[in-house]
Amino acid sequence: METKKIEEFRESRERLNQIVMKYAGLGIKRFFNLDTQVYQEGALPKKTKELLGLVASLVLRCDDCISYHLIRCYEEKVNDDELEEVLAIGLIVGGSITIPHLRRALEGWEELKQLSEK
Amino acid sequence: METKKIEEFRESRERLNQIVMKYAGLGIKRFFNLDTQVYQEGALPKKTKELLGLVASLVLRCDDCISYHLIRCYEEKVNDDELEEVLAIGLIVGGSITIPHLRRALEGWEELKQLSEK
Amino acid sequence: METKKIEEFRESRERLNQIVMKYAGLGIKRFFNLDTQVYQEGALPKKTKELLGLVASLVLRCDDCISYHLIRCYEEKVNDDELEEVLAIGLIVGGSITIPHLRRALEGWEELKQLSEK
Amino acid sequence: METKKIEEFRESRERLNQIVMKYAGLGIKRFFNLDTQVYQEGALPKKTKELLGLVASLVLRCDDCISYHLIRCYEEKVNDDELEEVLAIGLIVGGSITIPHLRRALEGWEELKQLSEK
Amino acid sequence: METKKIEEFRESRERLNQIVMKYAGLGIKRFFNLDTQVYQEGALPKKTKELLGLVASLVLRCDDCISYHLIRCYEEKVNDDELEEVLAIGLIVGGSITIPHLRRALEGWEELKQLSEK
Amino acid sequence: METKKIEEFRESRERLNQIVMKYAGLGIKRFFNLDTQVYQEGALPKKTKELLGLVASLVLRCDDCISYHLIRCYEEKVNDDELEEVLAIGLIVGGSITIPHLRRALEGWEELKQLSEK
Repeated sequence: METKKIEEFRESRERLNQIVMKYAGLGIKRFFNLDTQVYQEGALPKKTKELLGLVASLVLRCDDCISYHLIRCYEEKVNDDELEEVLAIGLIVGGSITIPHLRRALEGWEELKQLSEK
Repeated sequence: METKKIEEFRESRERLNQIVMKYAGLGIKRFFNLDTQVYQEGALPKKTKELLGLVASLVLRCDDCISYHLIRCYEEKVNDDELEEVLAIGLIVGGSITIPHLRRALEGWEELKQLSEK
Repeated sequence: METKKIEEFRESRERLNQIVMKYAGLGIKRFFNLDTQVYQEGALPKKTKELLGLVASLVLRCDDCISYHLIRCYEEKVNDDELEEVLAIGLIVGGSITIPHLRRALEGWEELKQLSEK
Repeated sequence: METKKIEEFRESRERLNQIVMKYAGLGIKRFFNLDTQVYQEGALPKKTKELLGLVASLVLRCDDCISYHLIRCYEEKVNDDELEEVLAIGLIVGGSITIPHLRRALEGWEELKQLSEK
Repeated sequence: METKKIEEFRESRERLNQIVMKYAGLGIKRFFNLDTQVYQEGALPKKTKELLGLVASLVLRCDDCISYHLIRCYEEKVNDDELEEVLAIGLIVGGSITIPHLRRALEGWEELKQLSEK
Repeated sequence: METKKIEEFRESRERLNQIVMKYAGLGIKRFFNLDTQVYQEGALPKKTKELLGLVASLVLRCDDCISYHLIRCYEEKVNDDELEEVLAIGLIVGGSITIPHLRRALEGWEELKQLSEK
């Protein structure tokens, strides 16, 4: 049973972020900070915000963004039924063109559950 | 003070949906049903689902879809701070290209508040 | 009964194309020529090619492109059932975010039928 | 001579669809059914509908969706000239940003032809 | 001779930005600041950066964003030939789906030239 | 230290372009020619045009297109600061959804610099 994709994503993201920070000027650095801030607890709980990040990533069809928000959703204790409802909304809004990403999202979700059982 | 855009949207949507239903075969009709079902109360509350619909519509930059979910968010008692946080996430995910839609979204939100005060 | 949108589109397209040609260098001119050539009769009939142009315009959500291909589909004797099936495929592929464009497409189709009855 | 990508796609799609069905609620299941129904024979023949699915997938730049519709086009006896004309329309509508997908589409088409010669 | 669209855009943008700032929290405010900063003179001149903003807006097909960068390009003394080359690149990259936006871009450019002659 | 991705991209692009030319009719061939012509020296220098191609590729999120324009930018002596400013504009315009592509773009840039040091 393979659980590699999520771990590979984490390693690759870490490594490449170091390259980004090597080149980043103020503009890119500030954007990266903002990108962290908007998901902090506020009027809406962190969990809801991660669901928002996930559905936005699905309809825009970005696998890495989906993987990132899946990991965060898992940390925020999103359950299977909640995840399915978010993905269903993304599927209806974004159409069949999102299906390959939906497939990989659920494959990633399986990996996350297997990783945490170890 | 103008409060026309939301009302014009509601009237136009109603009128055009009648044209759609005149032509719609099973495929289109079933899709429209599905599009209603996925926003029903479930593991996630209706309010959260409307926020998901809103952020998806913002990052995909569809004014009519934004107007529809804004109306529904208003009905589900989303408050100003919650709305701002959803729009901020959409803005960061989708970039400055979403700004014209964010502007019109908040204009629509003002209209909704004025309409309900009448 | 209003049948203005299609006629307004035709007039506006004509007027703006003149502005484009005033500024166009070789690159833009050649692209415009190519854009005409790919819809000519070939291994596939013109009618099929217009259906392809229509579904591509719907999933990319471009109202002017949809209006243009609707006019051409009407000239190529596409019937209501064929149109509905093309729009249903576009809707399933592109998702609910295409619905506002699907509504306006069918409104335009009604106008085309009314115009030709005059 | 490698003919692996299409077969890998088929295997992966099969495997991941099982994961999807494990999690899918009514919404996702109904969408998947609809996604099959709209490509059935109707006022338009199945072959034309697969060409529509292909061009929509190309302009939306989804490799897996392209692979799926290529396989179906091949089953429906689309010939090389017809395929070229569909891809040319997708390229003109969607621009040079579709070129990487057009390249992989034709690579996949070559594989399909080689697989059937075996 | 009508020169209204650019002026209407400026008025509307101003008015709606006031609504945005009424609702904006730190996230949205910081994003708006960043959106100004990245177009400032740096290793690349302001004029080049506005051309970059323009081509990005064209391929993403955002009329308001195009209008904004056209105004800025005009202020930075971009000439007709330079503009044509930027639009040609956007057209080739983004495809025929950008044509309606290219038409309106050149209509706006005509207006800018007429406004400055008054 | 791995410098494979850029070289793999070059090899794959070359190989697949041969398949494309095997199938290409006049439409696809003319488009490919146009795609070369619009980046030639003109009112704007080649270097500026490659920056335009790069930012368009980033906001449209096409890794292969980004790799191609990065190679060309490197040949046109774009320096690190100029590259960073182009990517920052693409990031602000296109949002966090472009971050995975920005990461891979800078990884590719590192590879290009290492390749030329050999």
